[in-house]
Parts: sequence; structure tokens; C-alpha cells
Amino acid sequence: MSVHEKLKALNIVLPEVTAPVAAFAPFVRSGNLLFLSGHIAKQGGEPWTGRLGMELSTEQGIAAARSVAIDLLATMNAALLDLNKVQRIVKLVVLVNSATSFTEQHLVANGASNLLLQVFGENGKHARCAFGVAQIPFGSCVEIDLIAECVED
Amino acid sequence: MSVHEKLKALNIVLPEVTAPVAAFAPFVRSGNLLFLSGHIAKQGGEPWTGRLGMELSTEQGIAAARSVAIDLLATMNAALLDLNKVQRIVKLVVLVNSATSFTEQHLVANGASNLLLQVFGENGKHARCAFGVAQIPFGSCVEIDLIAECVED
Amino acid sequence: MSVHEKLKALNIVLPEVTAPVAAFAPFVRSGNLLFLSGHIAKQGGEPWTGRLGMELSTEQGIAAARSVAIDLLATMNAALLDLNKVQRIVKLVVLVNSATSFTEQHLVANGASNLLLQVFGENGKHARCAFGVAQIPFGSCVEIDLIAECVED
Repeated sequence: MSVHEKLKALNIVLPEVTAPVAAFAPFVRSGNLLFLSGHIAKQGGEPWTGRLGMELSTEQGIAAARSVAIDLLATMNAALLDLNKVQRIVKLVVLVNSATSFTEQHLVANGASNLLLQVFGENGKHARCAFGVAQIPFGSCVEIDLIAECVED
Repeated sequence: MSVHEKLKALNIVLPEVTAPVAAFAPFVRSGNLLFLSGHIAKQGGEPWTGRLGMELSTEQGIAAARSVAIDLLATMNAALLDLNKVQRIVKLVVLVNSATSFTEQHLVANGASNLLLQVFGENGKHARCAFGVAQIPFGSCVEIDLIAECVED
Repeated sequence: MSVHEKLKALNIVLPEVTAPVAAFAPFVRSGNLLFLSGHIAKQGGEPWTGRLGMELSTEQGIAAARSVAIDLLATMNAALLDLNKVQRIVKLVVLVNSATSFTEQHLVANGASNLLLQVFGENGKHARCAFGVAQIPFGSCVEIDLIAECVED
């Protein structure tokens, strides 16, 4: 099954990718490595706000991380023109907007990790670093940064 | 216009680079990728202290981020012996010392991003991740970590 | 002296490496770069909990960071089958679970940096980024993420 068929089976439609209106890019490729900018969680096009351990539950955080992973897939698709050119998900940095009492950042991060595994199989298995941050731009609850390896041109 | 002429036009003089007195290096090159250590904001040679959303305004944070970008340029110049050997700014991680109520890390980060765009043009456009942290060494307000791609030797 | 002899001289026995029971991997190799997942500090097999500047002193943080470095060595040894295949420690990201008043993240990080320098000599000198985070999974006090360059196969 191709990556696109898997997305269809998961009922996932990739959103349109809009370039950030700033002095940075949604992605930069260097050699076979594709570096994605930190993507923040959104709901209905607006920042998905709230802090884990305060306004948001772990379950909500997992859903937010999964939604960020979908946006990351959309950006990789735009970057490579075809998601099948992703050879391997190399690294995920998962930032969780956390109350200082919240210690389940790894569970939140699984929302993204599990989706990448579903979509890419073993090639979706990545190195990961998840931790709690003091804040995220626009008050978003989760931000994820990704490195992928892509096939030679 | 070369990078050095652009710096001159921007009235920027790169500071001297001093190696950290610790078990780490200001930069490490691996293949064509140049990894820079996190550089903290300084003012008059001392850590530029304060938290965004408390002692410091967004405008001050933008100025601090810009000053860190100048120090990163100095380190890249020292690493490559010539800033023109920077092929692309690949990735910026911008850490903002933030009160938990402060959500404008992206604006602070623009202080660095915009300068890199001015100096390198399109090659200065990078992937970026900006977020709020609980603290930064020496109480500095901003810390930035950078990956650049350099030309083959 | 080989890396293994140095470990012996330092009286360090590398622990067994267990793969995380999650949708991510302890390491991913891409070309010559080896990306390790964030490793959290443990004591007696359990998360080494506490925040710097509150329950834990800088000295305890240094010891925790050193213990994480030992776990990172074990993972690199498992990844490459032989630690001597590490060509260079490229980058360390050291996350310190910090009270907002704690500003000695760089000293804590030295616990890991110094050990890598002892084990690998000049090849152990890395680019580094250390900062204070709001929390770490399981309430651990330190988490470290590493990139190494390894020799060609």
C-alpha cells in the first residue's frame, strides 16, 4: 500500500500548505535531509491553545499532536511533491505546553509518533525528544519539529 | 554584493569569537553541515538577562535575537574562515526565556530571522522552531542554535 | 587507548539497552549521522526526578547529566555495535528541569560534556545547547538528545 493509500484508509486528507509570512521557510532540504519548521497545533485553522495539566487533558494533547503530524505530512508532501519520497522519519522534537506539574509529554508525543508509524510503517519509526515548555507561539498546546530523510533525486 | 559588503551596509561589525571555556565547542562541522552551539544574548559582553512578558518587552526580545544572530554570524565566519562559504541557513532553534503568559516567541525570533535574510538573501531563509523556555544559562533572555550548510571544501 | 579501555579506566560499565515500548526508536542513522532519542536521567532504573533550583542542587544535576551520558554511550554502542565507530560527537541538547530562578543549566550540562571529552578526547568535543524546561517526561531532572557522526560502513 502506498503512503497515499494508507492516508486514505486512515481517512486523512492533507491540508493545503501555506508558506509562513515571515523570514523563514516551512522546510529546508540539505542533501538527503529535510528539515521542517516547528508546526504548532491548530483547530479549525486557529491555534489550538491551552496548557497540558491545566486547561487540556493528556487525551486532548494526544489529539493535538496527531493533528500536528498531519500538518507535517502535508508539508513533507509539498516539499517532496510526493510523500512516497520520504525514506525515513529521522527525528521528532515534540514540545508540549506544560504546567510544571505535568509529566506525560511522552504520551502526548505518541499522538504524532503513532500516526507516523501507521503511515510509513517501520520507516516511520524515528528518534524522538519530548519535553515540556513554558509557552509556544500563539499559546498553542503542542509544537513539533521534524527531520526526514528523502530518496535521492 | 558579497555577504561582507552586506554586513558593512548594515553597519554590522562581527565581534571576536572566543572559544567556550568548557568541554564543548562553539561549532562542529560534519560533512557539509555546520552545527553551532546555542548562543545566548549578550549586552556589553554580559548576559542580556530578563524574561519576556516580565522584565522585557517583545521589542527588546527582537533586539536581543538580532544581536544573537550577529554573534552566530561571527561564529560561522570563524568556522568557515569566510562567511561566503555559507551555502544556506538550514535551521534555527530560538529559545525565548518566557513568562508562561508570553506567546510572541515567533515575533522575538524574527529579530534573528530577518537579519539572516538581509545578509544572505534567499539562502538565509531557514526552517525554524521558536518556543518559550523556563530559563536560559546565566538568565539570558534569548538563546539560538543554528545549522548551516556550507560549500564543499 | 580505545574507547572501551577508557570506559574501563573510568570504571564505567555500560548498561543494557532496552528499546522503548513506543512508536519511536532509541536511535536512527541517516548517512553518517546517528540521531539519538532524548534520554532521561534515571537512578536505580527509575526516573531521577526533581527540579533544579528546587529539590535538586547543581551538583546533583551534574551527576544526573553524567549518568545520562553513560546511557547515551550505551545506546551508541548498541547502534554501531562498537563505540570506536563514533567519529565525532556532533551535538548535544541538554534539557534541565528548572525552577524559573535556576540559571546554571550550563554547569549541569558539563556533567555530560566532560564525560564525553574523557571518553572520546577531542572527538568528544561537541556543539551544545543547554536550557531550562518546564518539565520532562516522568518528572525526570535532565534529558539529553545527541547527534554523532560515525565512520563509513
